[in-house]
Amino acid sequence: MPTKITREAALRYHEEGRPGKIAIIPTKPYATAYDLSLAYSPGVAEPCLAIAERPADAYRYTSKGNLVGVISNGTAVLGLGNIGAEASKPVMEGKALLFKIYSGIDAFDIEVDATDPEAFISAVKAISPTFGAINLEDIKAPECFEIERRLKAELPIPVMHDDQHGTAIISGAGLVNALELAGKSIGDVRIVISGAGAAAIACARLYCALGAKREHIVMTDSKGVIRASRTDLNEMKREFATKDEGLTTLQEALVGADVFVGLSKGGMVTGEMVKTMADRPIIFALANPTPEISYEEAKAACPEVLMSTGRTDYPNQINNVLAFPYIFRGALDTHATAINGEMELAATRAIAALAKQPVPDYVCQAYGAKELAFGPEYFIPKPVDRRLIVEVSTAVARAAIESGVARHTITDWEAYAEHLTSLLG
Amino acid sequence: MPTKITREAALRYHEEGRPGKIAIIPTKPYATAYDLSLAYSPGVAEPCLAIAERPADAYRYTSKGNLVGVISNGTAVLGLGNIGAEASKPVMEGKALLFKIYSGIDAFDIEVDATDPEAFISAVKAISPTFGAINLEDIKAPECFEIERRLKAELPIPVMHDDQHGTAIISGAGLVNALELAGKSIGDVRIVISGAGAAAIACARLYCALGAKREHIVMTDSKGVIRASRTDLNEMKREFATKDEGLTTLQEALVGADVFVGLSKGGMVTGEMVKTMADRPIIFALANPTPEISYEEAKAACPEVLMSTGRTDYPNQINNVLAFPYIFRGALDTHATAINGEMELAATRAIAALAKQPVPDYVCQAYGAKELAFGPEYFIPKPVDRRLIVEVSTAVARAAIESGVARHTITDWEAYAEHLTSLLG
Repeated sequence: MPTKITREAALRYHEEGRPGKIAIIPTKPYATAYDLSLAYSPGVAEPCLAIAERPADAYRYTSKGNLVGVISNGTAVLGLGNIGAEASKPVMEGKALLFKIYSGIDAFDIEVDATDPEAFISAVKAISPTFGAINLEDIKAPECFEIERRLKAELPIPVMHDDQHGTAIISGAGLVNALELAGKSIGDVRIVISGAGAAAIACARLYCALGAKREHIVMTDSKGVIRASRTDLNEMKREFATKDEGLTTLQEALVGADVFVGLSKGGMVTGEMVKTMADRPIIFALANPTPEISYEEAKAACPEVLMSTGRTDYPNQINNVLAFPYIFRGALDTHATAINGEMELAATRAIAALAKQPVPDYVCQAYGAKELAFGPEYFIPKPVDRRLIVEVSTAVARAAIESGVARHTITDWEAYAEHLTSLLG
Repeated sequence: MPTKITREAALRYHEEGRPGKIAIIPTKPYATAYDLSLAYSPGVAEPCLAIAERPADAYRYTSKGNLVGVISNGTAVLGLGNIGAEASKPVMEGKALLFKIYSGIDAFDIEVDATDPEAFISAVKAISPTFGAINLEDIKAPECFEIERRLKAELPIPVMHDDQHGTAIISGAGLVNALELAGKSIGDVRIVISGAGAAAIACARLYCALGAKREHIVMTDSKGVIRASRTDLNEMKREFATKDEGLTTLQEALVGADVFVGLSKGGMVTGEMVKTMADRPIIFALANPTPEISYEEAKAACPEVLMSTGRTDYPNQINNVLAFPYIFRGALDTHATAINGEMELAATRAIAALAKQPVPDYVCQAYGAKELAFGPEYFIPKPVDRRLIVEVSTAVARAAIESGVARHTITDWEAYAEHLTSLLG
């Protein structure tokens, strides 16, 4: 279990040695005048001319095909809110670090001083030739929906707002497995989602794609249950407004519910409320660092609960790092024009499937566990699992090819799997 | 001398192994869950909050203070013209590689799909919080002047269009030294500049700042001498239009001229034209790869010529890499708000002064020379000279502090010099 994180330790980590967390290195020889005349003038004119003639050659002669822009305007950073572009830089650099260590992807963190969606969209479109794909990060709702929709529609490269889809995919994988453990069918269960921000909407949409019924989903925001009669709803909230006008509070909504997904604030749910849920309830309490209800409280109220949090120190952590490195890996490796619903579902199912495989010793050891096996205490894979890059990236790449968004086909899947493993060093 | 550069070798260099020339590496520990909880959630919130409170802390906790954006719209790439943003990527990646190896600066290459100056300016301003400084590159004239002027005026970080100022600074240093060798005073000499693009205008302006008289400068473009009576001149060309209406051709302009600076096309100048110049003429024939007149022809026409080209295989190469890595180094290390005229002049004089120092053996060896000493065959330092980073960066940093654009002061100059040398590894 990690040592306590102090303010001092966090600041020292960022400041010590060279400030920040990432650096650039040359990947080609540069020791001689000959090397430099290939890397720069006059030799560099050749790849320029090749790309001018055939734009796809950018994947062949530049780092574009392995380069993701991690782009934010700093309007919804972690739980800190709108702290501005510059103050979001540590998070975006951190994301670049995660991209590199989990999937070998190079990422430039780009902080955009633009809260207006049009201005933000223009800036990202303008710099998009730089990248093979774009990871939008920490952009507040509801602007994030329009921003992502427009950029997906208008750019020829994959765009994904990870705060929405990353959480949706991993919680979706967890939901699939928890339902299997509970012996319930996704088409039957009643789902309550606390929170109606970017991640909540994306989760609800993905659960529907997995088979959940829209009319079985109840969503709550700071004003209570989102009912169709409310006049303060934006388009996204309206999509999941319930017609049951009798429900007004989260407490009422939870009575008899099979699934609770918390994407809101710590401490919203009590043990008493858990006791009113259906048998073998599924609780994903994802508020960070304090979940909507603690693991201990939920277990005490209902020992058979299938529980997941956003924390590393409890079972079944829902951690975005299980998905985004591999989704982008698969998208880049097929020169995909988009990350589409098929690719997201493929990632979801691949993550879910991996949790049912026997767990390698090094994974157990990393978590101080004698053994991990599919069950209530382990239905979501661990971030250290080195099989993730192969299982998830391959599933995403296949889905890209099958759904027609790939511009580059992979045929030798064994060689691809070996290559993926080699990226972990 | 370098081996011949072939198309095949240049393409292979860019394609082999991992495509492109740069990659990202993490600079902080990431092996344990504890490391990652400092690098990312939850620890990363601390530097975010610190920067939100005190924006200058971005230099303390992120890579901003060592990060330059190498930004182009691909409208004037090398001698290839407007090949577009994406096709310019190999050059911008190459520049990032040069930044790293010559001055330890991390650079993100950013290719901007915007030829309209307003759109380009908006995009660069929007992403500017990412960077400690911005190097504009390969943007066509006359748009580059307005783009640079506006970004300098509107951004709180240094902005420099290297095609303009890099060439000006190094040719300015060469001019100062060549004039000393010729025994002439800069206030007296007649200067002819062939070419009226971004670099030519910047050169003329810097030569004036060094003491040249505007009325002694004659500039030519594709239509001949730029005379005040011409009606096709933009604002920049008008700045250097000659009142001598008798001059119409480059050939006429060169008669009796002390200095020729070529920033135009190969083969524009003949030996006969050189013979009409003043005694001990100074010829900087910088068109690449074919100079306005070859070294051999110029020497044959006038053995006492003081000659410089843009080529590595002749004496006195004018190579931008002598300046930009160290100008940005000095600007970043003082958290400068700008790269101003004082800093450019300081760089010019530091480069000129270094050429008069005894030359270390490793520099001579790198060029296959038994000995190099200040004189007609050596009046501009060599790119491999490891003293450049100390001499030029220190001069620029001092000028930043003295001219009031520094936000961080350096007091221990010996320690700074040691640090600079350590960046070369």
